[in-house]
Amino acid sequence: MIEYDQFLSRAGESMQGSAIRKMGVVAAGIPDIISFAPGYPDPAVFAWAEFREIALALLGGDDPNALQYGPTRGYPPLIEALSSILGTRGIRASRDEVLVTTGSQQGLDLVARILCDPGDVVLVELPTYTGAIAAFKDVQADLVGVRQASDGIDLGDLEAVIARERAAGKRVNCLYVVPNFQNPAGLLIGLEKRRGLLEVASRHNLLIIEDDPYGELYFGDDDAHLTRPIKADDVEGRVVYLSSFSKTLAPGFRVAWIAAPAALAAKLDVAKQAADLCTGSLDQRVVFEAWKRGVLAARVPGLRAHYRHKKDTMERAMKAHLGNLLTWREPRGGFFLWASLPENLSGEALLAQATAERVVYVAGAAFFVDGSGQNTIRLSFSAPTPDRIVEGIGRLARVIQRAAAEPSPA
Amino acid sequence: MIEYDQFLSRAGESMQGSAIRKMGVVAAGIPDIISFAPGYPDPAVFAWAEFREIALALLGGDDPNALQYGPTRGYPPLIEALSSILGTRGIRASRDEVLVTTGSQQGLDLVARILCDPGDVVLVELPTYTGAIAAFKDVQADLVGVRQASDGIDLGDLEAVIARERAAGKRVNCLYVVPNFQNPAGLLIGLEKRRGLLEVASRHNLLIIEDDPYGELYFGDDDAHLTRPIKADDVEGRVVYLSSFSKTLAPGFRVAWIAAPAALAAKLDVAKQAADLCTGSLDQRVVFEAWKRGVLAARVPGLRAHYRHKKDTMERAMKAHLGNLLTWREPRGGFFLWASLPENLSGEALLAQATAERVVYVAGAAFFVDGSGQNTIRLSFSAPTPDRIVEGIGRLARVIQRAAAEPSPA
Repeated sequence: MIEYDQFLSRAGESMQGSAIRKMGVVAAGIPDIISFAPGYPDPAVFAWAEFREIALALLGGDDPNALQYGPTRGYPPLIEALSSILGTRGIRASRDEVLVTTGSQQGLDLVARILCDPGDVVLVELPTYTGAIAAFKDVQADLVGVRQASDGIDLGDLEAVIARERAAGKRVNCLYVVPNFQNPAGLLIGLEKRRGLLEVASRHNLLIIEDDPYGELYFGDDDAHLTRPIKADDVEGRVVYLSSFSKTLAPGFRVAWIAAPAALAAKLDVAKQAADLCTGSLDQRVVFEAWKRGVLAARVPGLRAHYRHKKDTMERAMKAHLGNLLTWREPRGGFFLWASLPENLSGEALLAQATAERVVYVAGAAFFVDGSGQNTIRLSFSAPTPDRIVEGIGRLARVIQRAAAEPSPA
Repeated sequence: MIEYDQFLSRAGESMQGSAIRKMGVVAAGIPDIISFAPGYPDPAVFAWAEFREIALALLGGDDPNALQYGPTRGYPPLIEALSSILGTRGIRASRDEVLVTTGSQQGLDLVARILCDPGDVVLVELPTYTGAIAAFKDVQADLVGVRQASDGIDLGDLEAVIARERAAGKRVNCLYVVPNFQNPAGLLIGLEKRRGLLEVASRHNLLIIEDDPYGELYFGDDDAHLTRPIKADDVEGRVVYLSSFSKTLAPGFRVAWIAAPAALAAKLDVAKQAADLCTGSLDQRVVFEAWKRGVLAARVPGLRAHYRHKKDTMERAMKAHLGNLLTWREPRGGFFLWASLPENLSGEALLAQATAERVVYVAGAAFFVDGSGQNTIRLSFSAPTPDRIVEGIGRLARVIQRAAAEPSPA
């Protein structure tokens, strides 16, 4: 038998599947398991009938390009639509500043490839999104964490970390943030802090990678203005903005996008050419038609109410059963409820018992690049039905109550 | 204005769009242009009605996962189907040796990422596929060319190049080949030579990356056995095999696959997780259903006849108008006719005149990693109608005849 390790690149040697994914694999094998692990949208609110109608029209054969290779940059009418969608978010982006990606994960991957050499520091929040960790680690970047405050990333700590890393001779070019209802912590970066981030980026000559899949899914009726992208006030061209249709239409289409300064968009375009030539032609057209026919606009308010109700349901159940054991901040949008266990309990250690009780979550440590967060957990309320959420929190409560009642191992 | 070059990685700095793509951009802007440039399949032979029927069923909402995120490895029934498809090609591959990719371009990209560090040598044919060049260059591999004989890669030169590069202290782990109707040269590697390649790989401890998008599209009724993959006789686990539905069903679905030793497939899976999480869920299901319902099997014989007729048409027109000026080998399958101009003419230099005459091709030099091939051109006969092929060759003949009649610049 050949020893394949001898053929692996350094990146290949270090590649590890993520904790979320391993959880998914575990969960998939257990009957009647309730999963709060993956951040999946709820297929019950996908626009099935409209997609069917659109697909029927697109596959009529009138447009031979509907199943052909397409431009790497994206289906041109969709690029135009994205420019318009970005406009509604306060972002002015011309055609040469927009690129369609095969899901936002590809966006992160392309950004990492064109911006990071091995050993470069990428600044991330503590905690941060595991998909970003994977993309930056794949190019052997050095991920360095910055603390969060209740209104998102701590600017004082950010300055301190930049100074420390640069003093150590590191190349520090990029800061990665998820300002709206962050995955995993659910936090919203305050408006003033967003302006502060631009100021810090300018002073320290950084690019900000702004990942915004959840911005439209705010729960408060008057909260729209709180989700204004950092990119909207980016006068210097320091922000690379990523967003997606995965949470508002459906992730199975794998259609997302990047808005970036034209010089960077051109590099991303070339990188994408090597990565997958083009995003699915039919998928892009379905998404475009869903936008053009108003399906997207008509659906989003209902999505907000749908996910808010699930969030309320989960929180109510947690207050009833776990109010004295878990601490958490009420999320104002998105898919995630982020909770802290008592200091002496480990999210990872409890997972075996939770799985035995047929409920799973993601142990929070997976989201920390500095090994901290052992007593945190991420609970996704987006996919399960309200009944299952109540039942799942009940199961989780039994696990945590039991663990908390045991004498501390220390 | 910010100088973005300061933020680019070394890979980002060196990224350049390919010649084929630039050609596509040029061609798209010119009315009535006839393009022999991109290797596109012909949408006239896509199974539109069947795809419509399948999409209609899939979007009925019975399977909520049809538009959800899916396993990185691929839609499980499709993985099973691929195992069966591989079986018909003589390849035994279990579930843990198969991975779905977002087009074969992603397959090449993932392979490059897990196998190549900057400076590693990847051996390729002279000429070789530009998409592979892009993928390997993106990881800063050093592409080194091996000459071709009429039955594909020259084994003597292969041995000499391996010896030379290793003597120079280079890491030489991988050989990339397209054995069936190669893009661009249209060559078929002989059966005996395929076994010879395995022997060389074993003796020199190499992995073979076998890219096979065209194997089913042979033109001779008795030629099926000539396309037997190298992987089929790979007893040592030295072959990573790539194939695709892009040429047999449609490229717009972006569904392709890799068969690789399980240890490598696991690494590819993790790399794919960082690259795009999963391939389109609907796309994978459409392709699976097209296989399951027999659409694929029923269609392939017609595709062979369809593309053979186009090849015949192009060759006949070339013989009539260019027989004394171009030399070429009759392709036995695939999409490409590869031709050599008189020694003193350059495919690149002629392109401006061809474009003025409203016909384009790809200048062959783009496929050579050593700067040679200046007098070669690649003509794709796959997409244009037979009438347009005849008209296009007529235009091309005028350009080449005119250039050949001019006194040589030397």
